[in-house]
Amino acid sequence: MEYKISEKMKDMKPSAIREIFKSLSDPEMIAFAAGNPAPESFPVKELNEISNYIFQNNAVTALQYSISEGYPALRESVKKRLNVKDTVIIVSGGQQGLELTNKVMCNPGDVVLCENPSFIGALNAYRSNGTIPVGVDIDEDGINIEKLEHALKTIPNVKLLYVIPNFQNPAGLTMSLEKRKAVYSLALKYGVIILEDNPYGELRFRGEDIPTIKSMDTEGIVVYCGSFSKILSAGMRVGFLCAPDELMQKIVVAKQVEDVHTNIFFQMVCERFMNHYDLEGHIQKVRGIYRAKCHNMLTALDKYMPKEVKYTRPDGGLFIWCTLPDSIPLNDFVQTALAQKVAVVPGTAFNCDETAPSQSFRITYSTPSPEQIERGVKIMSEIVGGFLR
Amino acid sequence: MEYKISEKMKDMKPSAIREIFKSLSDPEMIAFAAGNPAPESFPVKELNEISNYIFQNNAVTALQYSISEGYPALRESVKKRLNVKDTVIIVSGGQQGLELTNKVMCNPGDVVLCENPSFIGALNAYRSNGTIPVGVDIDEDGINIEKLEHALKTIPNVKLLYVIPNFQNPAGLTMSLEKRKAVYSLALKYGVIILEDNPYGELRFRGEDIPTIKSMDTEGIVVYCGSFSKILSAGMRVGFLCAPDELMQKIVVAKQVEDVHTNIFFQMVCERFMNHYDLEGHIQKVRGIYRAKCHNMLTALDKYMPKEVKYTRPDGGLFIWCTLPDSIPLNDFVQTALAQKVAVVPGTAFNCDETAPSQSFRITYSTPSPEQIERGVKIMSEIVGGFLR
Repeated sequence: MEYKISEKMKDMKPSAIREIFKSLSDPEMIAFAAGNPAPESFPVKELNEISNYIFQNNAVTALQYSISEGYPALRESVKKRLNVKDTVIIVSGGQQGLELTNKVMCNPGDVVLCENPSFIGALNAYRSNGTIPVGVDIDEDGINIEKLEHALKTIPNVKLLYVIPNFQNPAGLTMSLEKRKAVYSLALKYGVIILEDNPYGELRFRGEDIPTIKSMDTEGIVVYCGSFSKILSAGMRVGFLCAPDELMQKIVVAKQVEDVHTNIFFQMVCERFMNHYDLEGHIQKVRGIYRAKCHNMLTALDKYMPKEVKYTRPDGGLFIWCTLPDSIPLNDFVQTALAQKVAVVPGTAFNCDETAPSQSFRITYSTPSPEQIERGVKIMSEIVGGFLR
Repeated sequence: MEYKISEKMKDMKPSAIREIFKSLSDPEMIAFAAGNPAPESFPVKELNEISNYIFQNNAVTALQYSISEGYPALRESVKKRLNVKDTVIIVSGGQQGLELTNKVMCNPGDVVLCENPSFIGALNAYRSNGTIPVGVDIDEDGINIEKLEHALKTIPNVKLLYVIPNFQNPAGLTMSLEKRKAVYSLALKYGVIILEDNPYGELRFRGEDIPTIKSMDTEGIVVYCGSFSKILSAGMRVGFLCAPDELMQKIVVAKQVEDVHTNIFFQMVCERFMNHYDLEGHIQKVRGIYRAKCHNMLTALDKYMPKEVKYTRPDGGLFIWCTLPDSIPLNDFVQTALAQKVAVVPGTAFNCDETAPSQSFRITYSTPSPEQIERGVKIMSEIVGGFLR
């Protein structure tokens, strides 16, 4: 049998970083590659307690079919927390929110403008729908506004502008308030919907919160996507999406045919955590975990890494973005590190143009121990030193 | 802001039966409409026990990101139970399995041949991808083979043949072994992939099991979709898909961009139920529940319903399909029943051709109590009697 694959799926490959992720099953591997949250951040005791409560008090609701929009009490709680007027629905993780928005808004051949580099899961979701991610370079304070306007002016069929303003994946950078305002104005001027992805927003461990673009959205042009993955549990797959009602009606239909509804048991778990437990205190604890781990990694980088390598200093989130000097071939570096049991993700994986080169790689401090962080950075530094000699 | 909706989504409407489902929140409503499993079939105590076990012994695995293919031990257990050689992956409910298969195999304008009437969730999933569901009439022993061959011969771009051989939704009929063999041969002859959907297969309460079409699949042309929704819990959203490896590789990529992976906690719950609890005994118990409830409903229909109304006598599953005489307008009947607090689903909702008429309606015995079943059937019968007078 020769299988005919649909046009939009036939060139799709498993994520380029999949092989690296597989290497993470090696217990000796130092995992600077995955975007997994720190396991010590999961509130296991509280989640177990809440699960027992639900099984004992509301089991039938938690185990029966539910509505596609999500558990009403959770929708209400998220809406209140986000302080938004638009409709909030519950999705099966942030990834689904991005995919659904793209499916509802874009035809094959349409363009999604993205920060370059950007989150590979989003880029692949857009590609799987036949949509073309086109990258706009980023500066230290976020997307380059001149290049963004140039792209909006010159590229036809731009339907969405996808941004991760807080602690961007993979670059770890944060978009300034000024740039958020400029992005909003440009999107309005060119009639493009902004898809604001904020999975790491609660993980700020330095500096002051910056208002979301959604908070400026008087005209109904921002779709906002968030998640419980980085604050309660990634494995339960509960996220949320906020959009103007007219758009949301179509998104709910798309959601309904994809998985009927999000696991209702864990929707109820999230709701109970939000309203009967100390979510704020828990988030402070999680921030503390990442603050310490990021500090460990930056300290090791400052101490060991040759100064020819540049790296970002994040205010939150999970990622540091490192850039090698031109003299070091990225792939050789990544492969050498892997052979020495340090897994990092090459920057090419995050390029909107899959054929474009990169001198950068992404590392995370979220899952390795302090000892592994120091040892891994030392190994990477020695490899760089070897190339420079 | 004027929102531009993608071609494939712009004509999609919320499920036609959505309004009827909303009426089910009225506590006085007799719910013959929803396809919800019987709440007394959920093994609450065991699921609570297993959840505690997981939180206490393997919490980090259950709460962390996992792989898109699904929890390896569950995949292995399902594969063994299905007794198949092809690859098995875990999906977020059977609905996702149908949607992913369609996304990977069909281009906009391609045709999926379906039994007519068929499961509305599947039809809408295909439509949301720009694919056209075309109906083939069914007889009492399953799809009409002559009409199926005619369709395969005359319709270009048929990419999939979607069938629900056991206790079909909505008709409650079961495809004979002879017809299963004929369907397989025809699909092979015309080079079309069969999508075999078997959500109710475990719910046989009368007669002998009939081999699945997948069990005849020596040539790798059958994608098989199943679910834990009707035997453990619908709300947890755990199903499975079995397909030849070459197809499955693409399906996994599509799954990854839709929701990364299925809720891992409940994948582990299912695995533990399968391997450490009495799944067979539980299924026998669930079959007993539906046997009794179906008997109640058929007894009431036999007793009260004017003989001008025809209805099916299912060997399993959740549904009975009733057909009114031509003299009674379907919509008037459905609305009158609703006004008298009996919710049924009009057959038009299950037509592949959304504009085609119907004289039938679907009822289920799964959630109402024996008293509600008797009372509801009596009310429907009196309404029919009124129309006939």
